Amino acid sequence: MKVTIKDIAKKAGVSPSSVSLVLNDRPSRISEQKKAEIKQIAKELNYTANQIARSLVTKQTKTFGLIIPDIENIFFSSLAKHIEMQCRIHGYTLIIVNSNDQFENDIALLDLLLSRSVEGIFLIPASASWLKKTELIEKLKQLTVPYILLDRVFSDLSCDKVWFDNEYGAYIAVKYLLENGHRKIACIASSSFINGQFRLNGYLRALKEFNIPIDYNNILTGDYKKESGYLAGQKIINKDVTAIFITNDMMALGFIHSIYEKNKKIPDDYSVISYDNTIYPYLFGVELSSVKQDVKKLSETAFKQLFQKIQKKDNVAKNTCLQPELIARTSVKTIHA
Amino acid sequence: MKVTIKDIAKKAGVSPSSVSLVLNDRPSRISEQKKAEIKQIAKELNYTANQIARSLVTKQTKTFGLIIPDIENIFFSSLAKHIEMQCRIHGYTLIIVNSNDQFENDIALLDLLLSRSVEGIFLIPASASWLKKTELIEKLKQLTVPYILLDRVFSDLSCDKVWFDNEYGAYIAVKYLLENGHRKIACIASSSFINGQFRLNGYLRALKEFNIPIDYNNILTGDYKKESGYLAGQKIINKDVTAIFITNDMMALGFIHSIYEKNKKIPDDYSVISYDNTIYPYLFGVELSSVKQDVKKLSETAFKQLFQKIQKKDNVAKNTCLQPELIARTSVKTIHA
Repeated sequence: MKVTIKDIAKKAGVSPSSVSLVLNDRPSRISEQKKAEIKQIAKELNYTANQIARSLVTKQTKTFGLIIPDIENIFFSSLAKHIEMQCRIHGYTLIIVNSNDQFENDIALLDLLLSRSVEGIFLIPASASWLKKTELIEKLKQLTVPYILLDRVFSDLSCDKVWFDNEYGAYIAVKYLLENGHRKIACIASSSFINGQFRLNGYLRALKEFNIPIDYNNILTGDYKKESGYLAGQKIINKDVTAIFITNDMMALGFIHSIYEKNKKIPDDYSVISYDNTIYPYLFGVELSSVKQDVKKLSETAFKQLFQKIQKKDNVAKNTCLQPELIARTSVKTIHA
Repeated sequence: MKVTIKDIAKKAGVSPSSVSLVLNDRPSRISEQKKAEIKQIAKELNYTANQIARSLVTKQTKTFGLIIPDIENIFFSSLAKHIEMQCRIHGYTLIIVNSNDQFENDIALLDLLLSRSVEGIFLIPASASWLKKTELIEKLKQLTVPYILLDRVFSDLSCDKVWFDNEYGAYIAVKYLLENGHRKIACIASSSFINGQFRLNGYLRALKEFNIPIDYNNILTGDYKKESGYLAGQKIINKDVTAIFITNDMMALGFIHSIYEKNKKIPDDYSVISYDNTIYPYLFGVELSSVKQDVKKLSETAFKQLFQKIQKKDNVAKNTCLQPELIARTSVKTIHA
């Protein structure tokens, strides 16, 4: 049986309300000795406060919700870990739910979290929600609790947001290739993803800045999965390029696989930069340079913003754009253009 | 402002209790027309039921808790995904918390989940909790709600459990090496982990079954991390062995790295089997055979057991041991012993 305040009150010979005052450290006329006794009894009986009951009094559930597209993706599981940690530090509990990148789940999970009386919601919208953007934005506008968009943000919705500058990340990667003398640079892009479109823009921006004419034959399309990088690699091998910028790690993995089969080496035959900086522990024979996004910073910034909003210290929609950084290893060779 | 039943009642010109009856699909004398009207108003006002308030009436919070050691580990994030999915299918919400493999966190998080009035707890104890086993078991015995241990289980605690047969998994891997003619088989073990001890036992069992004398010099110790596999590889290269059984994937990664640096090939120079079956998508040049644990099955079995307990359909502690399987690829060469 679950121990209640009544059980403690009975044993201590005081009223239940006295026990409540003591255990919540509220001011009262109860003696220090009796306070200590009540706390000791609570400990002995293995009493844990009922947060549900407490939330009825305080009108606070001390709970946040997090909707992520794919918990098996290391980027999102790491994000979940850091947000959960922040919640716990601040006395909040986090309900993590997984949308499987489906629009219908985004809608259903928002309702689920509301029914759980969360005080705020962290949302990374599903990829599929971009096609139903108007409907999701409509739903978000009707939300009765504060929320914040993370990583994937709608530019045409005014709300709290934290994300990475994907165009900048791609730009610094391609600029680095250019500065190392490369002029014939292919790109494996994924413009059907919102972040992928920005990464492609960064590639184009760097080339323009160096007055390199864009050769659209050198822009290949993938779907962020390994297989598409492998197929792109088979095409690139027949092209006249010295460097490749690949817009995510899984495609980079497929690309490396395909050129290894043709006995080509990195950086001797091709200079390569990828995006995400997650696969380098798995690679050997190549020290892959990659664009790193600081997930911990993203998580902590998002928590801070939403938490301030909850505390009503800040009521304006705040937008924070974080800058990724290039982790340069040895996968880029300097050539003389 | 959050829409309440009162708002709907006012707009529909009925009592709040009538609204409650209709929205909960309870029997009432309200006309079908009025029912439809009330539901329509609730929809227009974007009303969501308050699960917290409902739980006071039903005495059910419809919430489970899950304590995992490391959400960034693909095995555990996959497990969390499947359990969350099962919860949602059954109308439950899951609170996922991360112990960072620390004993103190196991204890604190159990209290946190109790304070949230979860109806049941899924627990994968921290590695560090093995050293404080007595204390954790004492805490678990005092729990006022049903719980189930997953993956890492205490043999000396009678409670619901679901886990993989680690000894069997290692046994079938080493038996496969033996059946392919190998007699000089090294093992990279991690006996400080409970599952690692069982995996080492499986290695020993297979050798004994084939009457191979145990050479303890061929048993190397790692800590489940890549670096320790790399160091073990540097020692193995000086030993007279033809095959290596590695008790987890990260150490296998380090091992492969180290032998590649010495220009050794798999399976030409060494036959290798690892445990976990998670890194094969990241490898090329080697199709690594590995022992696979079906996380989905583990998660679904655990959910089913705990859910039955909650529904009081089953009050006996149930223990389920799942068998892993060997995924044979091309990293083992057949030799003539």
